[in-house]
This record gives sequence, C-alpha cells and structure tokens, in this order.
Amino acid sequence: MTNKPGQLRDLSAPECWELLTTAPVGRIIWNTASGPEVVPVNFVADGSTIRIRTAAYSALVQKVDAERVAFEADSIDETDHSGWSVVARGRAEVRYGADDGPTPEPWVGGTRHTIVAVVVDQITGRRLTTGS
Amino acid sequence: MTNKPGQLRDLSAPECWELLTTAPVGRIIWNTASGPEVVPVNFVADGSTIRIRTAAYSALVQKVDAERVAFEADSIDETDHSGWSVVARGRAEVRYGADDGPTPEPWVGGTRHTIVAVVVDQITGRRLTTGS
Repeated sequence: MTNKPGQLRDLSAPECWELLTTAPVGRIIWNTASGPEVVPVNFVADGSTIRIRTAAYSALVQKVDAERVAFEADSIDETDHSGWSVVARGRAEVRYGADDGPTPEPWVGGTRHTIVAVVVDQITGRRLTTGS
Repeated sequence: MTNKPGQLRDLSAPECWELLTTAPVGRIIWNTASGPEVVPVNFVADGSTIRIRTAAYSALVQKVDAERVAFEADSIDETDHSGWSVVARGRAEVRYGADDGPTPEPWVGGTRHTIVAVVVDQITGRRLTTGS
C-alpha cells in the first residue's frame, strides 16, 4: 500500500517516559572500537532510570559499566506509518544484587541476577503521525 | 503474565537476511564522541546492502558517510516472549541519487532523495523461543 508521507513532532521528556512504560522491549547501545554494539532487551523504566536484567558474564555487563550508553524503544504501525520512538542517554551502572529499583522479568533462561541500570540524563523522542 | 524463560539460538546469515525482509522498521546506529546515536528508519534489505531513504540535511547523512555503522531489527512477541533480532554491520555510504538499488518508500514528509546504503560485511542474529 502507499501512504501519504507523515509528519514528525518532538515529544516532551514526560511523554517519552510514559511511552517507555508501554514498550516491552528496547535496545541498549554502546560504543566499541569496531563500531556500535546493540542488544535488544526487556526493561523497566521508572522516570529516571532504565533497568535491564542480564547475566553476570554477558557482553553487556563486561563492556558497559560506567560507560555512556543509549537506549532506544519505539512502536511503529507499519500499516498507517504512525508511531513513536524514544532515545534515552546516560551512564550505565552494573549492579550485582545491590539494586533496589523495579526490575524486569527475565525472558531468557540462565542465571540473570545482574542489573544494568541506565541513569538517564537526556531523553528525546518523536511521534510520527500518519499522513493518510 | 509469567512465562518460563525462553532459549536463544544463533541464526545463520541467510536466516538473518530473510528475516530483515519481514521487518518494516530497523534502527541505524553510529558512534559519536558523546555516545552512540540511533535513528529508527524504514529500509530495504537485498541480501548484501541495507538501504535507507533520508533527507540530504539529516543528521544521519551528515555523520555516517564512510563510517562503520550497525543496523538492528527485531520482532518480539511480548505475549509469549518469542521472536528474533538481527544486527548487521558495515560501512555506510551516502548516495545522492546515484544509487541503483531498491529503495524504501518514504514514510516522512519532506524531500528525501538521499540514500544511505549500509554495505554489510557482518550479520548476526538470534531467535528467542518461548519456554512456555
């Protein structure tokens, strides 16, 4: 099908945080010497921090502690080309059982007791409204 | 609801390319001095190159030409926690009307005649199968 082109508008930070509570999965992204790394994860967002549960031996844990990372989530309707995307930026902190915030249910088997908390200092988003 | 934890398995490159043809939207990611940047985009994948249509003045075009980038797409069922994710890596080339490959329909208004082609040299993916 063909749609008329849509329009993008910027979202406020409260709009971004509210939308993050509706997304089951996002993507945590960090820099490496050979280019960006990205891993899709389920998560919990509480208005200031995004928490991910992972395994202590995961690449995520080995690489991101104390690093600046980005976290992206979106929801796009491919039928009418409407939706939203949010990008949060901040410092990742690996918390081995010392985190008291809300934590996501693990979706993957194995021991996943390690929390990666992204302490967000910047959050931006855009909504795509259909042109149809 | 609660699901039993699922299992992850690696996907072959052909499986990854096939799955990319089923995804309406992916995310192009590049490094900056202040951390990774990520933009959700619609795209066309032809088995060796991922093509994105954008505006000549976009941040994407200004920053990624000749840079190594990552491209991620996924499809996760939040009900049963099954799905897949693919990450492609390669060199981004900005092509101003000089590209003869398949190009995506623009979803956003404005003049978007510029193609960013990601010439993929590495593609990996994983499938999450439900534990339920």
